[in-house]
Amino acid sequence: MFEQLYENVINAKPLIHSITNYVTANDCANSLLACKASPIMADAIEEVEEITTICQGLNINMGTLNQNTIPSMLLAGKKSNELGHPVILDPVGVGASKIRRQTARTLLEEIHFSVIKGNISEIKILGFGGENKRGVDANLEDQVRADNLEQTIDYAKEFANSIGSVIAITGEIDIVTDGKRAYCIYNGHKMMSAVTGTGCQLSAVISAFVSANPQTVLEAVASAVCAMGLCGEKAYERMQAADGNATYRTYIIDELYNLTPKELKKGAKYDMR
Amino acid sequence: MFEQLYENVINAKPLIHSITNYVTANDCANSLLACKASPIMADAIEEVEEITTICQGLNINMGTLNQNTIPSMLLAGKKSNELGHPVILDPVGVGASKIRRQTARTLLEEIHFSVIKGNISEIKILGFGGENKRGVDANLEDQVRADNLEQTIDYAKEFANSIGSVIAITGEIDIVTDGKRAYCIYNGHKMMSAVTGTGCQLSAVISAFVSANPQTVLEAVASAVCAMGLCGEKAYERMQAADGNATYRTYIIDELYNLTPKELKKGAKYDMR
Amino acid sequence: MFEQLYENVINAKPLIHSITNYVTANDCANSLLACKASPIMADAIEEVEEITTICQGLNINMGTLNQNTIPSMLLAGKKSNELGHPVILDPVGVGASKIRRQTARTLLEEIHFSVIKGNISEIKILGFGGENKRGVDANLEDQVRADNLEQTIDYAKEFANSIGSVIAITGEIDIVTDGKRAYCIYNGHKMMSAVTGTGCQLSAVISAFVSANPQTVLEAVASAVCAMGLCGEKAYERMQAADGNATYRTYIIDELYNLTPKELKKGAKYDMR
Repeated sequence: MFEQLYENVINAKPLIHSITNYVTANDCANSLLACKASPIMADAIEEVEEITTICQGLNINMGTLNQNTIPSMLLAGKKSNELGHPVILDPVGVGASKIRRQTARTLLEEIHFSVIKGNISEIKILGFGGENKRGVDANLEDQVRADNLEQTIDYAKEFANSIGSVIAITGEIDIVTDGKRAYCIYNGHKMMSAVTGTGCQLSAVISAFVSANPQTVLEAVASAVCAMGLCGEKAYERMQAADGNATYRTYIIDELYNLTPKELKKGAKYDMR
Repeated sequence: MFEQLYENVINAKPLIHSITNYVTANDCANSLLACKASPIMADAIEEVEEITTICQGLNINMGTLNQNTIPSMLLAGKKSNELGHPVILDPVGVGASKIRRQTARTLLEEIHFSVIKGNISEIKILGFGGENKRGVDANLEDQVRADNLEQTIDYAKEFANSIGSVIAITGEIDIVTDGKRAYCIYNGHKMMSAVTGTGCQLSAVISAFVSANPQTVLEAVASAVCAMGLCGEKAYERMQAADGNATYRTYIIDELYNLTPKELKKGAKYDMR
Repeated sequence: MFEQLYENVINAKPLIHSITNYVTANDCANSLLACKASPIMADAIEEVEEITTICQGLNINMGTLNQNTIPSMLLAGKKSNELGHPVILDPVGVGASKIRRQTARTLLEEIHFSVIKGNISEIKILGFGGENKRGVDANLEDQVRADNLEQTIDYAKEFANSIGSVIAITGEIDIVTDGKRAYCIYNGHKMMSAVTGTGCQLSAVISAFVSANPQTVLEAVASAVCAMGLCGEKAYERMQAADGNATYRTYIIDELYNLTPKELKKGAKYDMR
């Protein structure tokens, strides 16, 4: 199935509207191009409704939010909902400040998100409130591992049910659930956290997969998570002794560019709960 | 002649003021450095006149325009005109929203541009109005190919004459015209469209070439378009099996860094109409 | 000693708050990750105090400052001072406009900086006022070389004493002084100036070193300057014939990722005056 979902992305070449941060915008754009989608970054309040109208999906990333972009996120999100386009939220660093928590709350109240993707700390804060002292990284005690997997799945399902979105929690093991079924995904490499924005890139790629597969959101997200993780693995294998996180950054996007649907099918490592 | 024009860039090391988007700003800066020019990105209304005064050329890119940067574009453009500096416009995605169309119209009314560079859809919208559903890419039916080349040249010449700017239309074949003569340029590689911002980088490189050759704008633009396309070709030849669009991005700038005036002369593929 | 200072960075993994420009933000983030620190870029006035509170250091870079980010710089800097966190200033292009000079003056009046890092023109303008016609680069006549070294050290010491900060002046020879002692650092490669943002990256890396070594700021800055320069040398050695400034950019960060404390100790080239 993942094979077909990825074929659909390649064929549909969805145009993705991203309201995102300036730190990783370039990598997000190149990641979308790598999976044959097309990026448009635009955050001016005057144009976000028009921009989102010509796109097939909207990706909202809270990375460097400010008073200009927050109203744009809201407006674009509502318009996308009206049009029936999928809207994806990446609540980057939501625990790090009041304005991030407030913005996330308002976004969740006003917009229906097809998918919310974050690390465990970000997702917990969306559900329960609270803070995070690690900035854009997950709190160490929260990270998803084999020994707290069941409990995290239960929480993710509950949260997915309560808001009607597919929830994707990234970590050593990634969890993707629509509240009924949960994919546990074992792809990925820990060195991905040494490259800024691999999480933002994943949200961009999820947006492409979901926009090309709007009827099977859960599976589309799971296949995007597997794809990105698989690219992280393959990119790592390609590394030479002198290579570091900058070459790794390049190789991850390269792998996405060269990944075939067949390879995704073969390389995806997951089970379902 | 292209050899000499490029030598002039290398010798003059022009300082280029760019008011540009946050997605591709880094690649634009490194492309300017690659051709031995020097970048300064600055868009605060309080400083754009001073910044543009110490520069030799101004590059206005509409990529992620907003209400803060639009007045800065206008002010910097007028100041550059006063100083007799070349001003280059890249009307990124001008068909995608009303504010982009309005901004382009105002810029064209208030500022004289030495060069306007866009894909065929962007250039047509500047001339005729209309919209574009493909975001920052050209409409498929418009793309410049052998079979619609003559007609596109006629349109480009007419538009160039009407506004007194050199017009550069990028596509499978690139057209550069001052209204009298037209260069048809056959350099480039289709994979360049899989890297975000190669068009923005071209505008930056054009700015450097024109700023170092203000008396021969048509030829300066044509040589910059050949240079960028040639680097796209050479970078593609360097690609290995596992390389993708991220490595290609790196190699394009590398090729520009290593391109010699002699190689440009030898590799430039064009004819004149 | 440099070995231990770098070990401390690796162990402390300091979270660095950066209020920085959109041109080089990605490279700054990856440079921080490369030396095992953690980046958070945030410039909204509503959140900068909270963000800086959860961090161990603050890096203020004036690269693309504007009326939204200037008050954020001030607020974050004051808060960091209150908390006793080190604050680092990179006065990018301070000579290029009135608002940059005013902002620098206000920042110096309102905030105590642990470190100020700039090229010689930037540092001279902070001390004496004046302008700079080379944008973000140093005026040629000012550049630190063997023949004006003593005189530059004297100036740097005087300025360091007058404001109570460690001053780092980058150039062919780098000078780092607390007003009493001065390190003259011979690491680095001239090709680093062909990559946009290597100066910004250095400020980010300095922030990490100082935040992990708040009791030995002078030595922390000197070791960061040696580390970055050494990476520039090693990255240059790795270059192949077809590589240019874009590959060099990648390799510099790679080298930082792979640099060990022992290699830093062995490769650091400096003397003291």
